[in-house]
Amino acid sequence: MKLPGHVDENALADRLDRFAVETPSWGYADTGTRFGKFFQDAAALTIEEKLADAGQVHRYTGCCPTVAVHVLWDFGEERPPAFVRRIAQQCGLTIGSINPNVFQDQCYKFGSLANRDREVRERAMQHIVDSIEIAKGVGSKVLSLWFADGTNYPGQGDMRQRKRWFAEGLEAVHQALPQDMKMLIEYKPFEPAFYHTDIPDWGTAMLLAKRAGPRASVLVDTGHHLPGTNVEQIVALLLDENMLGGFHFNDRKYADDDLTLGSIDPYQLFRILREVVSVERERGCDVDVGYVVDQSHNIKPKIEAMIDTAVTAQEAFSKALLLDHEALAAAQAEDDVVMAERAMRNAFATDVRPFLAEYRTSRQLPADPLVAFRESGYAERAAKDRAGRKGRAEATYA
Amino acid sequence: MKLPGHVDENALADRLDRFAVETPSWGYADTGTRFGKFFQDAAALTIEEKLADAGQVHRYTGCCPTVAVHVLWDFGEERPPAFVRRIAQQCGLTIGSINPNVFQDQCYKFGSLANRDREVRERAMQHIVDSIEIAKGVGSKVLSLWFADGTNYPGQGDMRQRKRWFAEGLEAVHQALPQDMKMLIEYKPFEPAFYHTDIPDWGTAMLLAKRAGPRASVLVDTGHHLPGTNVEQIVALLLDENMLGGFHFNDRKYADDDLTLGSIDPYQLFRILREVVSVERERGCDVDVGYVVDQSHNIKPKIEAMIDTAVTAQEAFSKALLLDHEALAAAQAEDDVVMAERAMRNAFATDVRPFLAEYRTSRQLPADPLVAFRESGYAERAAKDRAGRKGRAEATYA
Amino acid sequence: MKLPGHVDENALADRLDRFAVETPSWGYADTGTRFGKFFQDAAALTIEEKLADAGQVHRYTGCCPTVAVHVLWDFGEERPPAFVRRIAQQCGLTIGSINPNVFQDQCYKFGSLANRDREVRERAMQHIVDSIEIAKGVGSKVLSLWFADGTNYPGQGDMRQRKRWFAEGLEAVHQALPQDMKMLIEYKPFEPAFYHTDIPDWGTAMLLAKRAGPRASVLVDTGHHLPGTNVEQIVALLLDENMLGGFHFNDRKYADDDLTLGSIDPYQLFRILREVVSVERERGCDVDVGYVVDQSHNIKPKIEAMIDTAVTAQEAFSKALLLDHEALAAAQAEDDVVMAERAMRNAFATDVRPFLAEYRTSRQLPADPLVAFRESGYAERAAKDRAGRKGRAEATYA
Amino acid sequence: MKLPGHVDENALADRLDRFAVETPSWGYADTGTRFGKFFQDAAALTIEEKLADAGQVHRYTGCCPTVAVHVLWDFGEERPPAFVRRIAQQCGLTIGSINPNVFQDQCYKFGSLANRDREVRERAMQHIVDSIEIAKGVGSKVLSLWFADGTNYPGQGDMRQRKRWFAEGLEAVHQALPQDMKMLIEYKPFEPAFYHTDIPDWGTAMLLAKRAGPRASVLVDTGHHLPGTNVEQIVALLLDENMLGGFHFNDRKYADDDLTLGSIDPYQLFRILREVVSVERERGCDVDVGYVVDQSHNIKPKIEAMIDTAVTAQEAFSKALLLDHEALAAAQAEDDVVMAERAMRNAFATDVRPFLAEYRTSRQLPADPLVAFRESGYAERAAKDRAGRKGRAEATYA
Repeated sequence: MKLPGHVDENALADRLDRFAVETPSWGYADTGTRFGKFFQDAAALTIEEKLADAGQVHRYTGCCPTVAVHVLWDFGEERPPAFVRRIAQQCGLTIGSINPNVFQDQCYKFGSLANRDREVRERAMQHIVDSIEIAKGVGSKVLSLWFADGTNYPGQGDMRQRKRWFAEGLEAVHQALPQDMKMLIEYKPFEPAFYHTDIPDWGTAMLLAKRAGPRASVLVDTGHHLPGTNVEQIVALLLDENMLGGFHFNDRKYADDDLTLGSIDPYQLFRILREVVSVERERGCDVDVGYVVDQSHNIKPKIEAMIDTAVTAQEAFSKALLLDHEALAAAQAEDDVVMAERAMRNAFATDVRPFLAEYRTSRQLPADPLVAFRESGYAERAAKDRAGRKGRAEATYA
Repeated sequence: MKLPGHVDENALADRLDRFAVETPSWGYADTGTRFGKFFQDAAALTIEEKLADAGQVHRYTGCCPTVAVHVLWDFGEERPPAFVRRIAQQCGLTIGSINPNVFQDQCYKFGSLANRDREVRERAMQHIVDSIEIAKGVGSKVLSLWFADGTNYPGQGDMRQRKRWFAEGLEAVHQALPQDMKMLIEYKPFEPAFYHTDIPDWGTAMLLAKRAGPRASVLVDTGHHLPGTNVEQIVALLLDENMLGGFHFNDRKYADDDLTLGSIDPYQLFRILREVVSVERERGCDVDVGYVVDQSHNIKPKIEAMIDTAVTAQEAFSKALLLDHEALAAAQAEDDVVMAERAMRNAFATDVRPFLAEYRTSRQLPADPLVAFRESGYAERAAKDRAGRKGRAEATYA
Repeated sequence: MKLPGHVDENALADRLDRFAVETPSWGYADTGTRFGKFFQDAAALTIEEKLADAGQVHRYTGCCPTVAVHVLWDFGEERPPAFVRRIAQQCGLTIGSINPNVFQDQCYKFGSLANRDREVRERAMQHIVDSIEIAKGVGSKVLSLWFADGTNYPGQGDMRQRKRWFAEGLEAVHQALPQDMKMLIEYKPFEPAFYHTDIPDWGTAMLLAKRAGPRASVLVDTGHHLPGTNVEQIVALLLDENMLGGFHFNDRKYADDDLTLGSIDPYQLFRILREVVSVERERGCDVDVGYVVDQSHNIKPKIEAMIDTAVTAQEAFSKALLLDHEALAAAQAEDDVVMAERAMRNAFATDVRPFLAEYRTSRQLPADPLVAFRESGYAERAAKDRAGRKGRAEATYA
Repeated sequence: MKLPGHVDENALADRLDRFAVETPSWGYADTGTRFGKFFQDAAALTIEEKLADAGQVHRYTGCCPTVAVHVLWDFGEERPPAFVRRIAQQCGLTIGSINPNVFQDQCYKFGSLANRDREVRERAMQHIVDSIEIAKGVGSKVLSLWFADGTNYPGQGDMRQRKRWFAEGLEAVHQALPQDMKMLIEYKPFEPAFYHTDIPDWGTAMLLAKRAGPRASVLVDTGHHLPGTNVEQIVALLLDENMLGGFHFNDRKYADDDLTLGSIDPYQLFRILREVVSVERERGCDVDVGYVVDQSHNIKPKIEAMIDTAVTAQEAFSKALLLDHEALAAAQAEDDVVMAERAMRNAFATDVRPFLAEYRTSRQLPADPLVAFRESGYAERAAKDRAGRKGRAEATYA
């Protein structure tokens, strides 16, 4: 027996079977900071390569069957939705959430849905509506919306007017949404706008989601909070209000650092997932939220970082599942702070690696996905194949 | 002419006549940090002295006609509402917002409205209902609610359950509220609870206020935000949603430092009040929000700190009023970031002290309230009178 | 075998035998926040009771043989050093670091060693010199200095002049120090001063320590840092400069919350202690730093909180000791970020509780100190004995 | 008379004549965030254009006679030092500080002077030594060093070893420095490294500067601090230790946002410069520190942003100069916190714009540099001339 006595290991394994982590296509390509990009020979260049890499992650972890895609970067005339969908299938994957991009084009310098220029607002809207069509084409049921809108200086924009434009725009998006799709609204306190961001916190995201319609909910990126924020409390509240649509997984020490999940504060990750598990126990069924990786692995090899993240998510989720809820509830019922906290810490202190190794083996997966992937030689082959085709873009900060 | 050419000085003065700052009774008594209190000979001991001091602030500033009171500290068997109301009148004041206290008694160790113990929840509720009665007795129309509820350790409490208790409790408070009173719900991210606070942010406060009923709204304490928060954006949003009930005025550099208003970041204060003024211009009428001081003048003399705060508020509000809104709007209409920001900075850079001196003189008030108060000798007399009666409590941190 | 194969369990146990955590006398008494104190029946009132409680902590953990004392609160005419020393011995303890108090008296309102008033500076100095005498009397070798000095408002003090007074004062303290004592200088970014603190960071503390003399070094309180600070890097640097004198152990989510060690971010605690262990491996000997608890257990029972803290410290230190340094070094030597991080995470993920239970049993200690203490009935007896003698001071925030 | 009675306007004007702000060549080119660049037609492409633009800034402000250059971006085979120097002269400028770049090349992925690979360390060192040669060639006396070195994950690097490499490298740089040059060491808490930065704070920068040699000092970038840091205190301390070499001017709300100076917190800027002025008064001579702009004007037109910054710096410095130091000192001497703070606020509240307009006119400069520049038509001509030659690089975040 690998886990504490009160744990039903089979039930835990069953729930793990239904715990999937979605990896993002953009996480397989070269990324950087504003000071420049460090290129990796093995990083993917095309959507075909991104999907191939994502397929590797799923092959070794068994828990990453879907891929989030980015409309601007992954599709095109020669790469229509049907094509992308087929490639995904060939890699053993399906397409997960669809991410429009209304921040990169020069026209979005002063905003997208909150741009004072009606034409730009309409252009952004059109791109989002197009994205919904792409979603239909690839069989995706989730439209994931992040807006870089904001201002850099006091006075630059009228914050109330911009809020109204956002409410209007998101309502229109919701109207364009088919009945079987949902839309997630992400919030972020700062960057790339530095004075104000139009959707800075969960409160604004939820307000806008409520106004947009019943298929809109909030996406929590674990790195998009000001220092000191109690993220698990936000998750608890959104769950209780049935307004949590999904997560973007990553970790951070200072700002939106986009480091790999659990690399800085693994206890917080456990506490976040514990809120999900707690609701699932209460309701007797799985909570329907997406767990999507959104990281920027500047210096870690892409596929390894992704495998590592999936494994970390499984470990944290397992710890949340094995928590002795009865002991916790009993201690809470007496305001026994020491024992209540102890229940939390006991769960977190449990070493779930041996159990997970066994679990994977029982599912015909390698006990140690990272080592198995390393031994496969895939990364070396990809590097050899791709390195030559790469341009070396100039650094961007000048 | 003391102000820029585009400004209608009479209109500005008229609006200033209707700009009142409420001072809190507890701001006239000795306060401290957890490391101890530094006592001031002139600090007030009784509600009579607090009101006398508040009367001085109003006498010299002309803009502080109301006093916020604290149910636990300012009332008692020998000091019933009618008594306090009469004393206030004798000091030229009326009673403003009523502040229940459900954090100090030992029974609130694990919370008030969110305490797992039904008896404690009911006791807290009863105290709030009693406070409403006191409000009626003193003629107050505002119930101002701050809750210290929260937990110190992960696992200590069930955050979702506690939220539901809060929703339930605040709904009951709303039901007990007469038609002509409103209730304000304050939020605070941390302290005195250090892991989670039940009402940590505006989003939670607004959610609970909406649920409680139409006379509930949100109170923004300028110091109750995590580092980096754009406070004026929160104010703008709440105004736009008609959910801003009032302010607690103070300033801070790190946490909830309760320093005097504008002492650390006067530009932020200007930007906050500018949002209010902007809405007033749009609607063509004053916005009905309370401006209440909530500071802890550990080392500044109490009355002087309060006068200084009122003057600072007037200065910032005047700058907000004199902003060249046409220039700002014109620049915004062209995304001329430089000129839009310049409109803001020009308003802030304007030296309104000469205008305000003249304004005060025209209202039979001293041009420099602080100096006039110093010259009156009131503080010396109060010190002489009160010093002897003071006990010297021990420091509290041990 | 309870630990990974590469670990020499006996060597680890031997090092643990030399890992002691000092508990503070003030941690056994009632404490609070500025909003009030929540009293515990079992909290200690006198130095005799504090030492008795500390003796319990050592009895059940076996690793807390010394007690830090506070000059103002623990000594007096009827409790001279020799008396305190003897009581400690009777409780199986010795006195650890001596903490002067130059922040509580009314004369320190505007500072102690940085007060502009020479008399106050001299009085503070005299108190510190007296503390050194007390240290001699109780056999302590460590003078632990924390200063609340700072200002609340821009302009209040001359920061450069105050720095010079501090340099002067600490030099004088060093001169009064016997050859076999060391002095630790603690830093803190804010609270109770809110605009500037005279010793806000490690840089200032180290500057002053260098200037004071060779027996002065820096004390790192784990909770005294601004959000985002990399604390383990500061520890690494101070160790490398031979300027780390000791730790104050606690945890925090926002500010200086004084929560129990490892309750919020246990991975950070591991990383901090890993730096110590890393230096010890390099040098082949123990690093001479003090591990002193400094927490404010407002809502946890005092003795339990202390036992829990000692156990947490042992767990984190054990994980630091069992780290596979060879694997880490090998990965670092190839900039293999993934495997280097994995070495860290593998150590942290290891469940050391079974090993520590066995270790304790082998040392004739209870396998689970907290449960053993609970079963002893000591807390109930103390509560019964002490409750009646307690005054109920009023809340302090008014 | 434009300023308060106690001010000697001529003396203030004289000091302003000696207050110069250096603008950076990179501030005239297109910049962006990691999410992409927004291009400006008028942004400079070549060093010739950058210098021409800087010449405009000096022409309209009269206080920006020097330009900081970036070795990697501004020099080349066809643009040797002598060429750049001559172009500068033609634009009415001289070259100010020299900025090596040891962060952009792929070899610096894991660091420059702290890279574990000796070859990379040597390459970085060679680049810095080459930069010193360039400095000689352009007549610069200041080597300004910023290092992006750091790690993204716990365990990735050995922080103590890296510190030693830095100490070693900077010592070597100092040895290569001619007697009449100085080297400035900049610190930054995070970004682009996200777990640890090798030179994160002033303490580390000063430690390394002291170790490097007498011509090394610390550069304070106003935006490179954690939230809550008291920047003016750092400035005061460095000045008192004769270790302040210069400033990088910008402003921020959250992280290293690189917004224009004084746009977010103008009072802090005043307080920082007040520390400089305070030392100058004490010493009776100007303090030799560089005031260099380092901003990233993503959305403001480059030249306008720079003019605005120079004007803002002059305004803040003027306010610092006109402070009533006698009143401040008198209040401090009595711990009169209210009046001490009032002296600070009175200086800051003074509207110096009319005085500065007059001052500029008296120096044959336009009273309003920004408006004068706008009217000149330079920006339109530059846009027309440059737009066509621009490539549109792809966005960098993918």
